[in-house]
Amino acid sequence: MNKIEETIKGIAQLDRGAMEAARARQDALTKPQGSLGVLESLSVKVAGITANYMPAIEKKVIITMAADHGIAVEGVSAYPREVTAQMVYNFLRGGAAINVLARHIGARVVVVDMGVAADIDIGEDSGIDNYIFVKKKIGYGTANISKGGAMSYEDAIRSIEGGIEVLEHELEHEKGGGVDIVGVGDMGIGNTTPSSAITAFITGEPVESVTGRGTGLDDNGLANKVKVIKKALEVNNPNREDAIDILAKLGGFEIGGMAGVMLAAAAHRIPVVIDGFISGAAALIAYGLSPKIKDYLIASHLSVEAGHRAILNYIGLKPLFNLNMRLGEGTGAALGIWLVDAACRILCEMATFEEAGVSRKE
Amino acid sequence: MNKIEETIKGIAQLDRGAMEAARARQDALTKPQGSLGVLESLSVKVAGITANYMPAIEKKVIITMAADHGIAVEGVSAYPREVTAQMVYNFLRGGAAINVLARHIGARVVVVDMGVAADIDIGEDSGIDNYIFVKKKIGYGTANISKGGAMSYEDAIRSIEGGIEVLEHELEHEKGGGVDIVGVGDMGIGNTTPSSAITAFITGEPVESVTGRGTGLDDNGLANKVKVIKKALEVNNPNREDAIDILAKLGGFEIGGMAGVMLAAAAHRIPVVIDGFISGAAALIAYGLSPKIKDYLIASHLSVEAGHRAILNYIGLKPLFNLNMRLGEGTGAALGIWLVDAACRILCEMATFEEAGVSRKE
Repeated sequence: MNKIEETIKGIAQLDRGAMEAARARQDALTKPQGSLGVLESLSVKVAGITANYMPAIEKKVIITMAADHGIAVEGVSAYPREVTAQMVYNFLRGGAAINVLARHIGARVVVVDMGVAADIDIGEDSGIDNYIFVKKKIGYGTANISKGGAMSYEDAIRSIEGGIEVLEHELEHEKGGGVDIVGVGDMGIGNTTPSSAITAFITGEPVESVTGRGTGLDDNGLANKVKVIKKALEVNNPNREDAIDILAKLGGFEIGGMAGVMLAAAAHRIPVVIDGFISGAAALIAYGLSPKIKDYLIASHLSVEAGHRAILNYIGLKPLFNLNMRLGEGTGAALGIWLVDAACRILCEMATFEEAGVSRKE
Repeated sequence: MNKIEETIKGIAQLDRGAMEAARARQDALTKPQGSLGVLESLSVKVAGITANYMPAIEKKVIITMAADHGIAVEGVSAYPREVTAQMVYNFLRGGAAINVLARHIGARVVVVDMGVAADIDIGEDSGIDNYIFVKKKIGYGTANISKGGAMSYEDAIRSIEGGIEVLEHELEHEKGGGVDIVGVGDMGIGNTTPSSAITAFITGEPVESVTGRGTGLDDNGLANKVKVIKKALEVNNPNREDAIDILAKLGGFEIGGMAGVMLAAAAHRIPVVIDGFISGAAALIAYGLSPKIKDYLIASHLSVEAGHRAILNYIGLKPLFNLNMRLGEGTGAALGIWLVDAACRILCEMATFEEAGVSRKE
């Protein structure tokens, strides 16, 4: 557990001085104070995260983590299991929604195999162009959580460590160094089920109110999913004081991976934009490991998926958008990154009243 | 009135065929149907507007219209009147919020003097770089609406025609032709007052509930503003059946100009992204002239300014964001344009299930 503990120890307080300087600058820019609302407060938060009162968001990274789930055999998803691997290829060929939005915001997509139930072939004939693929496979999908734990305690640690390594590799890997902002996203057929289990267990909300239709279950499918999740909670009974045990019993490899990315980003003073429900569940694990993580998280959108609001309320985050989205992959995070970029540009690029020769409030 | 009538006659229905084709394509893309929510519905709306089932949003224009208001002498704004002209210079030098956001989304800003109470000097020494300035000055500010009409009926027509001309000039002006999307924004010290008057008159909401603090009035200032607006409504008593008369009695030159831009854009099948409260008041005038305009309007954000929600409800528009903004200038419209662009890129660039070899729902 050394790597995880070390990372958590590295998470510092927000830089209050940078935040005050950013707030003072916002108040001196040519607009009524506060008139850009969330754009202003976002820029101040990023100043605190980065310890820079005029932060630039240039190097944008979206880390999309994929894994399979043993629980899929219980009929909790409208899509067949092989879609996880098929979508990984789609990511690597640039055809998925996250690729489109990442291009639109000028971010690179890092696709991570945290535990897909198939080997991903990235050989020369695979048609893959310039997307980054990282293999951190912990296993070929988790075990069926309605029968026992999702993974061993050691694998839960390895999945979080895998996420830490992915972020740290991207920090060094990029020429010129550095990641200015990171978004996390997921792909994994069946993964709303472990996410609902984690959410119900940690937030204490009833299973029914944090379980949704995922990719498109009908009423019977939804009722079955609720039953399966209740059974998973009963069978596993995790240790409430140990977020790693919660992950091991109920989780997914990509959920652990995303939690690791969040911890590592916070330790390196990088803002993390979370996506929807699955990355929210990962945030619950990261928050359980270190509540300080909250200051480094930015919630992009409010997902249609039922449990997302409970997660954000539990951690104390307010989403930037509510656009009726529920795709995952990091699509909401991409939109959020763009808005953070806009907020920081306002802070850095606008003229002050003095510079522009504009009269102040009377 | 020929130019206005001609423009209105040119506003066609949305293209249902293009909308159906866009919807069918959205449903074939590699994501659960509907999982991108508002991004999907936005792209379908733009397909209907442009009569193109795969619309590209490349040429983006933000038209920011400035004018002064006679009502400013009644102490309805926290800022002195000269700020309108000072901010026009700020726009032309690239230092305002709208410049920053326009650069961020790759839009050009067209700054229009519809009736600033000063001559704008764009001579060689003015320090103005590559922002477009258009002079359509109807007068040096409107008259005080608490004492009589804002402008003559003829000037109301001229202000709307001015807006039509600005849009049509941008259509031809740009090399290669065309404007793919237009956002409208405003600058005018005191202009929340005429906007509240127009909103109260047209929507029938009480003055109190559609009057806000503008750039930052205190409680006394707000009470005075409400009194002034009530007086303006009493003194002027516009003809409810004639949106041009409402504009003449209560309006502003920039409000008429923005209404003209909206009508012309609709007539040319160009989506119009409206900004906050002032452009919302302009939308009420345009809607009064031709309810068909509604199909061409996209509401970007919900302003903090009290009357904005009443406007959107009256026309039947749903805002994309709620970011506690209230600046104007087209800043919310810029964010909205970016989201429309994202929506259309999803529609055009994502792979279909067949192209990507991904299995469909079971």
